Amino acid sequence: MKAGFVGLGAMGQPMARNLHRAGLLAGAWNRTPARSAAFAGETGVTAFESPAALASACDAVFTCVSADQDLLAVIDALCPALRKGSLVIDCSTVSADTAREAHARIAAAGSAFLDCPVSGGVEGAKNGTLAVMCGGDEDAFLRAQPLLQAIGRTIVHMGPAGSGQATKATNQILCAGAIQVAAEAMAFARAEGLPLDRVIEILGKGAGASWYFVHRAPFMARGEYPAGFRVRLHQKDLGICRAMAARHGAILPVVEATLADYAHLIAAGHGEEDISTIFRLKAPLFRDPADD
Amino acid sequence: MKAGFVGLGAMGQPMARNLHRAGLLAGAWNRTPARSAAFAGETGVTAFESPAALASACDAVFTCVSADQDLLAVIDALCPALRKGSLVIDCSTVSADTAREAHARIAAAGSAFLDCPVSGGVEGAKNGTLAVMCGGDEDAFLRAQPLLQAIGRTIVHMGPAGSGQATKATNQILCAGAIQVAAEAMAFARAEGLPLDRVIEILGKGAGASWYFVHRAPFMARGEYPAGFRVRLHQKDLGICRAMAARHGAILPVVEATLADYAHLIAAGHGEEDISTIFRLKAPLFRDPADD
Repeated sequence: MKAGFVGLGAMGQPMARNLHRAGLLAGAWNRTPARSAAFAGETGVTAFESPAALASACDAVFTCVSADQDLLAVIDALCPALRKGSLVIDCSTVSADTAREAHARIAAAGSAFLDCPVSGGVEGAKNGTLAVMCGGDEDAFLRAQPLLQAIGRTIVHMGPAGSGQATKATNQILCAGAIQVAAEAMAFARAEGLPLDRVIEILGKGAGASWYFVHRAPFMARGEYPAGFRVRLHQKDLGICRAMAARHGAILPVVEATLADYAHLIAAGHGEEDISTIFRLKAPLFRDPADD
Repeated sequence: MKAGFVGLGAMGQPMARNLHRAGLLAGAWNRTPARSAAFAGETGVTAFESPAALASACDAVFTCVSADQDLLAVIDALCPALRKGSLVIDCSTVSADTAREAHARIAAAGSAFLDCPVSGGVEGAKNGTLAVMCGGDEDAFLRAQPLLQAIGRTIVHMGPAGSGQATKATNQILCAGAIQVAAEAMAFARAEGLPLDRVIEILGKGAGASWYFVHRAPFMARGEYPAGFRVRLHQKDLGICRAMAARHGAILPVVEATLADYAHLIAAGHGEEDISTIFRLKAPLFRDPADD
């Protein structure tokens, strides 16, 4: 089984490269042709002229795009050309509803769809160590194993179509709460005049610890926020969480607070920084200890 | 150097027992005499009649009480009887201001004070594996090492008087955020119909993970909240955080949201449950997936 890849962005390109290394990549397509041409030049992988041309040449197609409407547009472009019984594996982060819609359209075309959002960032994509949260039919999940194992390390079937996206959304909610409270706690600790490196060391081993506290509180202590998980991307994902919760008649207080903070940060020009930049909004809420 | 112990509560008693095992305990005093009598009966350690009697027989006195005013009352009872140059080591969780006040009163009496709040819970107290966050003079901190090493594993000097309490308060803020978002994310995941055990498994290894998510989301999945960290104790600690932040002119949004939730939980009779019981308030915000 050979796969095609649609969407050679920051995540898609290293994932496609890992499929190529495993001998599983038949070709690629990208909306901006220069990018697929460059990838073809580097790897020798065929750059196709259209999603349909790619689909007709592969048994499986990966998609990795930015937004819900982009995914559905690509799905519609693939459908008429998909080989019977082929697989479409979407690694974008979109809403569970969009994943179910894509599943329905692909099923109507006689193929199978898996929503397989990933976590682990660009580094995980490069190293092939992503966590892959899969929604869709068990049979399609099993058939996709050789492909998924080329891009990820932890690959879990979460349930029917949409379940992968629902799991990813749950993860993005957890990240929002973790960064919020890491910033609140660090602002408090700084106002108290504590040595922040020792605070991170001791509390990072305790019951209050989180991945974000251990790995991003040091960014806050230094006041430097190099792009890891960008504010604008988390904002997009939290918008999906908000919309999904609304379908259950619910609001997500932690998500709402974080979206409000991100709107301020983006307006102030910090949208391309790591989400730990939220510390910029928390620290000034405390009077400087020198003023006491 | 032998120590006395004031306050044989859920945390104090196992800590006193570890000092006794290390051959470092000279006696104990407890406000409710039955408890120190029982401890004396079990261990052979002398139950003293008053804090002053205990102080006059020891080179160091540990205190582990519930509230700020209790600590200051014990300090005042100890002061006239302390041996010159002795150490008072307080393991209670109180405000940094109270710790500084205790430090001043003990210094005026010619002894040294360390604020040494701990984390790690009753289990850490029993196993002698507590994290101990110390505030006070470097010299006193160094002299206290043999005693502190009998009760804890990670012992860090955070700075002058009050720094231990400020560090503990920072930790309690982190716990509030971690339990809040774990409950919000689990309520979302349940509403989405996801298999919660698999959600915990995969997200517990990712960037959204926290100690509370890994260890307490399973309580939420089961709907059982056996006392680990009790709501009423965390409420008390977060009240301290609120008061400390107010001194800097700041409010702590995550702490305020958590205190509001805890007031509801205590009113509903859940104050003695583990703080993961906060899930009771989050889950009903979502319509049951069966209703969709």
